[in-house]
Amino acid sequence: MRSVVENAVLALLLEVSGTPKPGNVDRHRDHTDLRFEHFLAGAVGARSGLSRLTGDGPLGEGFERAVEGMADQRGGNTQFGALLLLAPLVRAASADEGDLSPAGATDAVERTTVGDAVAFYRAFEHVDVAVDDPPEGLDDLDVGRGADAAPALRERGLTLADVMDLSAESDGVAAEWVGGFDRTFEAAEWLLGDEGPVPDRASRAFLRLLADEADTFVAKTAGPEAAGEATRRARAVLDGAEDAEALADELVERGINPGTTADLTAGALFVALERGLAV
Amino acid sequence: MRSVVENAVLALLLEVSGTPKPGNVDRHRDHTDLRFEHFLAGAVGARSGLSRLTGDGPLGEGFERAVEGMADQRGGNTQFGALLLLAPLVRAASADEGDLSPAGATDAVERTTVGDAVAFYRAFEHVDVAVDDPPEGLDDLDVGRGADAAPALRERGLTLADVMDLSAESDGVAAEWVGGFDRTFEAAEWLLGDEGPVPDRASRAFLRLLADEADTFVAKTAGPEAAGEATRRARAVLDGAEDAEALADELVERGINPGTTADLTAGALFVALERGLAV
Repeated sequence: MRSVVENAVLALLLEVSGTPKPGNVDRHRDHTDLRFEHFLAGAVGARSGLSRLTGDGPLGEGFERAVEGMADQRGGNTQFGALLLLAPLVRAASADEGDLSPAGATDAVERTTVGDAVAFYRAFEHVDVAVDDPPEGLDDLDVGRGADAAPALRERGLTLADVMDLSAESDGVAAEWVGGFDRTFEAAEWLLGDEGPVPDRASRAFLRLLADEADTFVAKTAGPEAAGEATRRARAVLDGAEDAEALADELVERGINPGTTADLTAGALFVALERGLAV
Repeated sequence: MRSVVENAVLALLLEVSGTPKPGNVDRHRDHTDLRFEHFLAGAVGARSGLSRLTGDGPLGEGFERAVEGMADQRGGNTQFGALLLLAPLVRAASADEGDLSPAGATDAVERTTVGDAVAFYRAFEHVDVAVDDPPEGLDDLDVGRGADAAPALRERGLTLADVMDLSAESDGVAAEWVGGFDRTFEAAEWLLGDEGPVPDRASRAFLRLLADEADTFVAKTAGPEAAGEATRRARAVLDGAEDAEALADELVERGINPGTTADLTAGALFVALERGLAV
């Protein structure tokens, strides 16, 4: 009975409620200035932007509005990456033909325009997002420039898909955009095939995703060594050699926050809810 | 920036996240078959019904739709009472003049019709709600009859306000409807005057409400003695003689769930958010 947009909002809420998700804010853990309730307000605030993605309007504008609504709380960036991942998924799920598949989501990516790229850059004006420096020779495309990057985007004729392609190597969400959403759809199948309460399934999917691949948000904010360590230790949890709760406490304490893995978990939850996962 | 409906949904989410709220599902506690994520899904599912309350449509129908959406999860009744309390508050907040005050909410109550009463009865068909037997001689108004009670409601010409009046003595939400929403607005002022994270404020407001007055949901489901005990022990917490966390564990263990006090807390959170409480 829930609409596509309601499932997207619920996915964001279920993601932050899954525990333990080592290093993340979860049902049992807060960071100092970024707390559980900020994610609740972020999810609620994102709704009206997400609902624009179900129509024919520009994807970039829907995303920007979702980010603007998300940012209406005091914690700062809660779900920027998750919303970026959800945007093409929501669009695919709500298209006339309703094709929530790797092909359908990739189609939404390929239809993005230069205008969508401009709106994506504008979204960075609503909230502080941790990002890498732009690639060599692309200073005029620094997302820190926000709307000021519009002329450079237009001059180079870069669509939002092109922009994602430029950062796919260093950003796990961008990699999904241009790589067929493999990890998102795979993790959705894990969620559907798992048993027990949905937040527990989300916690397990998060650990598998983290064990599989280094988190790009950790790499950006705490360095590649920390990212490698988080992945190695998530594997140790899956092997039974480490305790997930203790690892969660330690990573939160050290400020090692696998935010991209959380984004992928939110995307996977959305796909699973759309495919019938019952809460 | 959040709309009235978004604040109503956020109020439901913040309510269930406040901890400790002795006896309730909260951020740190679940009941056996009624878990945190059911409240998340209940809040998200209620949204489209709540949004009907912002227009000119019948209040009863908006409430019924909110309950129907809320019930789209496996936990059963999560927020029936909270939605009943929110209905006139949301209507008052979104009226043209936007009068979210005891007078504005009471005006919404007084405008209810027999049709609203019929819709209220229909709402019981969507979810199992713990209720008392109907008053002596009013068997044809048993809410367990659902839509079948419509002829009796029409014959007696009972509006939804009249129905609330009949159960005001045994139901704390009905008492708010016909008593000017005193406790709701008072607790909203506590929330606004308090300090710290909003879920912590919600926990404190819940304890004060419970200490002030016996919970009618506990009285219905566990008996008046249990309701008296819960209130006495909430007072002991406020006096520093009992530990709130230990009391919360014990009451959940014993199945003593002050659900009406949670409903009032949700209503108060909504009023406080509308009055500028920042998350």
